[in-house]
Amino acid sequence: FCFCLTGFWCCCHWAQPPTDSSSHKKASLDRMGIFSKPAYTTSLSAQSDANKSDRLIFSKMRKTNIVDMLQFLTLDLLPAKNGEEPTMQFLLEVVDILTNYVRKTFDRSTKVLDFHHPHQLLEGMEGFNLELSDQPESLEQILVDCRDTLKYGVRTGHPRFFNQLSTGLDIIGLSGEWLTSTANTNMFTYEIAPVFVLMEQLTLKKMREIIGWPDGEGDGIFSPGGAISNMYSVMIARYKFFPEVKTKGMTAAPRLVLFTSEHSHYSIKKASAALGFGTENLILLSTDERGRVIPADLEAKVIDAKARGCVPMFVNATAGSTVYGAFDPIHEIADICEKYNMWLHVDGAWGGGLLMSRKHRHKLCGVERANSVTWNPHKMMGVPLQCSAILVRERGVLSGCNSMCAGYLFQPDKQYDVSYDTGDKAIQCGRHVDIFKFWLMWKAKGTIGFEQHIDKCLDLSHYLYTKIKGREGYQMVFDGEPQHTNVCFWYLPPGIRDMPDGQEKREKLHKVAPKIKALMMESGTTMVGYQPQGDKVNFFRMVISNPAATRSDIDFLTDEIERLGQDL
Amino acid sequence: FCFCLTGFWCCCHWAQPPTDSSSHKKASLDRMGIFSKPAYTTSLSAQSDANKSDRLIFSKMRKTNIVDMLQFLTLDLLPAKNGEEPTMQFLLEVVDILTNYVRKTFDRSTKVLDFHHPHQLLEGMEGFNLELSDQPESLEQILVDCRDTLKYGVRTGHPRFFNQLSTGLDIIGLSGEWLTSTANTNMFTYEIAPVFVLMEQLTLKKMREIIGWPDGEGDGIFSPGGAISNMYSVMIARYKFFPEVKTKGMTAAPRLVLFTSEHSHYSIKKASAALGFGTENLILLSTDERGRVIPADLEAKVIDAKARGCVPMFVNATAGSTVYGAFDPIHEIADICEKYNMWLHVDGAWGGGLLMSRKHRHKLCGVERANSVTWNPHKMMGVPLQCSAILVRERGVLSGCNSMCAGYLFQPDKQYDVSYDTGDKAIQCGRHVDIFKFWLMWKAKGTIGFEQHIDKCLDLSHYLYTKIKGREGYQMVFDGEPQHTNVCFWYLPPGIRDMPDGQEKREKLHKVAPKIKALMMESGTTMVGYQPQGDKVNFFRMVISNPAATRSDIDFLTDEIERLGQDL
Repeated sequence: FCFCLTGFWCCCHWAQPPTDSSSHKKASLDRMGIFSKPAYTTSLSAQSDANKSDRLIFSKMRKTNIVDMLQFLTLDLLPAKNGEEPTMQFLLEVVDILTNYVRKTFDRSTKVLDFHHPHQLLEGMEGFNLELSDQPESLEQILVDCRDTLKYGVRTGHPRFFNQLSTGLDIIGLSGEWLTSTANTNMFTYEIAPVFVLMEQLTLKKMREIIGWPDGEGDGIFSPGGAISNMYSVMIARYKFFPEVKTKGMTAAPRLVLFTSEHSHYSIKKASAALGFGTENLILLSTDERGRVIPADLEAKVIDAKARGCVPMFVNATAGSTVYGAFDPIHEIADICEKYNMWLHVDGAWGGGLLMSRKHRHKLCGVERANSVTWNPHKMMGVPLQCSAILVRERGVLSGCNSMCAGYLFQPDKQYDVSYDTGDKAIQCGRHVDIFKFWLMWKAKGTIGFEQHIDKCLDLSHYLYTKIKGREGYQMVFDGEPQHTNVCFWYLPPGIRDMPDGQEKREKLHKVAPKIKALMMESGTTMVGYQPQGDKVNFFRMVISNPAATRSDIDFLTDEIERLGQDL
Repeated sequence: FCFCLTGFWCCCHWAQPPTDSSSHKKASLDRMGIFSKPAYTTSLSAQSDANKSDRLIFSKMRKTNIVDMLQFLTLDLLPAKNGEEPTMQFLLEVVDILTNYVRKTFDRSTKVLDFHHPHQLLEGMEGFNLELSDQPESLEQILVDCRDTLKYGVRTGHPRFFNQLSTGLDIIGLSGEWLTSTANTNMFTYEIAPVFVLMEQLTLKKMREIIGWPDGEGDGIFSPGGAISNMYSVMIARYKFFPEVKTKGMTAAPRLVLFTSEHSHYSIKKASAALGFGTENLILLSTDERGRVIPADLEAKVIDAKARGCVPMFVNATAGSTVYGAFDPIHEIADICEKYNMWLHVDGAWGGGLLMSRKHRHKLCGVERANSVTWNPHKMMGVPLQCSAILVRERGVLSGCNSMCAGYLFQPDKQYDVSYDTGDKAIQCGRHVDIFKFWLMWKAKGTIGFEQHIDKCLDLSHYLYTKIKGREGYQMVFDGEPQHTNVCFWYLPPGIRDMPDGQEKREKLHKVAPKIKALMMESGTTMVGYQPQGDKVNFFRMVISNPAATRSDIDFLTDEIERLGQDL
């Protein structure tokens, strides 16, 4: 074995290995030209000037000037001897950068983004170079890197960022994430995450109560996103009906088929591929014009599958589809699931939040009949990414499905009640603490605060819908008031408006949304998503989950679309 | 549909919905007894006294007294009108709590944990109540909640926390996580995470170079932990050999078998269950006394499986096993994989970090012959949780395996090079930004800094091994110097030491480690793991990945084991 084979970490890279840390530090600073040629100074000063007015609050807090960080490397921070002072100073500088960013995020006079193409960022912007090197950088440069990382990113909390289902920057949630990072622990055992494990348990129970399962009974776990939560649901369903698959594999089961709407999230398809069902055994259900599953189509396809010798096992009902925001009729689907003995999963990743609103929860009517539910607080409830729960009505199947009883992690002879060691239920081993920010937000807002947020977002989307319905140049993708905050529409620039319907108009219209979106991103003023759907050419999908958005931001968006689309 | 069915969110819960926010706020504060009876005051004052000496740096930074937060609710924070000042003040209070925690973490005079049983925390400690309610809490109470969450947790960065493979609290990594939370974005498209997407790409390439793949070519992705990374490897291998499984399911393939060591991580078993292979089709390989796979056993079992009509498809070689820290002989396993046309995966979740050390990387000799590698920077490299990479030698198979081309997320007609939209490669949809903290640490430490950290940890474990080998009362679980930082040993209290070998001694010894561990946790002085393995009764597994640990902490651990085990 030869180090040189790696082409990188070969023995000839340095004449000799580094010796003690102080001489190394001095040497490496020399190599970096820090003592001789502070290349970053220009960039930093330029930025400092620009940010001067934003640095009011923290400016008094600094014991020393920012330039002091020049003399330090990461080796000088804790756990280094005498590391406490530089550590505190460095963290304070970082917090200064972050709080400036937070304030600007909510300031409508700042851009949503400062767009650059990949090759531009890869070539390196002034003072900001993504390449990693063998030698350390000074802490001063690290601070510049932090600032620039934010500068060239996208402000997802900006009141005019409408691009994704997850938007906004909740201050309590943010604080929760900062604390979570500082605690830096793992959800697999009570032993090392006692408080977080209990918070997860209590919060999941509360969510099950809100779903409507008696006494909040059941099981669940937070997972790394809605796609994994949906994957869990398929795994658990399979375990419930064919537990022998766990040991013997899919060949031990008959040919199983799954059902989901053609409007549903692609994670169901990913799960059917990953778990060994095959995407061809995922049967897509037709929807009505509003994107809701037609129950009769489900029943017909179940009967057809049985006739072909397949075993219908699992139905996914979407509560809040990604594009249209449609809610499938859960009660009617549940009737069919009961009749044919199939698992009913409700994918409420996007729409689950509406359960918190007395005004809107009727859209998930029947959810209490589901066997499992995906619900992502990081979408409609404004919790920072990531925060997704899979909730299961029957106790025991989640554990049964996944447990492997690894003796080195889940010892039965601990001094505490080991039923709190939840790790063996998961397909993960280590699991990030996603619960704390959500728990803390719930404490701070109360259930009532989530309700207010959700009602407000739906009011705003009603405002947008009412505004553009019938307005010149706009055309709705489907008729009627949207069920969720998704408002789907085409904008027709004047030059297209009066064209006769037909292929040419379609082709032109298909290019409008991408073009407007590109102009938006280049001007950095706002962001909204677009996509085609089925035979429908590219249209805008406006979604509102951002607590910072107001009617004026909605007005800004339509003005901007009209301004940028004027001459297309 | 009736709200009352939910048992919780029923219409009669309040006489009427809340009106404007200010009257609601006042009312809710009244309900909480905040104006009339500040129940948390005692708890807060008590803590304030205790922390007084720890509050030097930040004390000058506060514009107002902490009690001012009393008057605020989360509704007063940004994006509220005039929300900037309370927001900045609140964030500063949070940072104060966090930096105090950071300083104490590195202070050996503080405990590693303040242990409480689940029922104690559930019943509620003074001023700290985990229950969620309908009404909001004051920001003051939220700060108390933050403080108490840390108080009853475990200091995983404490120099004497040795309980897991992931330990330590890297200040740069922590800053990186704080920034990541503040940016609050998602890895699926370049559009909303331009800088992070590029950082991931560059860092993965660097890791592939270090593995030794020519020019760092190949593919990869950061995933939510080593278990998911290992699951990816099995999925990709299956797609490479039997791509039709993606569409037709496992029944389209012959009976596939997988191989892994009996000492390997249980995630391979979880993956074989989840992906539809079945755990019985995962064949466990025998190991030598040190926990390393015996290549001849692999070949014999491959031949046997073929004779039974199975198709050997995948071999997992562990580079750093969880308990013994053993490195399987990769070259010899690679020879067999080539001979029988099997996918070679190297699970370097724990041992991958050693690739950064010129002194220790020879332990992964042959890793460049792997088809895929799991490597968790959040373990041996001290990166905060979570940070795990799956790296793949051949380009295209990762995308081929997982892509579903969802039009609403990955539009082909964007203005930038959409090959940077990496989301469709993942089994996730949304994906947490795990790269930034790692990238920032690499910038700050340089490759050389990771090498120094790793060499230091291995030096420390050598110190421990040398110290207890042959020391009275200690017995090593296997002979010879450990390959990784895992030092596995029994401690025999005086009362057991001279007992004749046999069942009675085994039974007594089996209870020693759990008992000492329980006493450790109750006294809160240190934490170390234990477990049985095969026919071996409970033994301690000491691991060192904490950059804060020194020889004196190792001495403290053995002293503590001897002190607590004295009378058992």
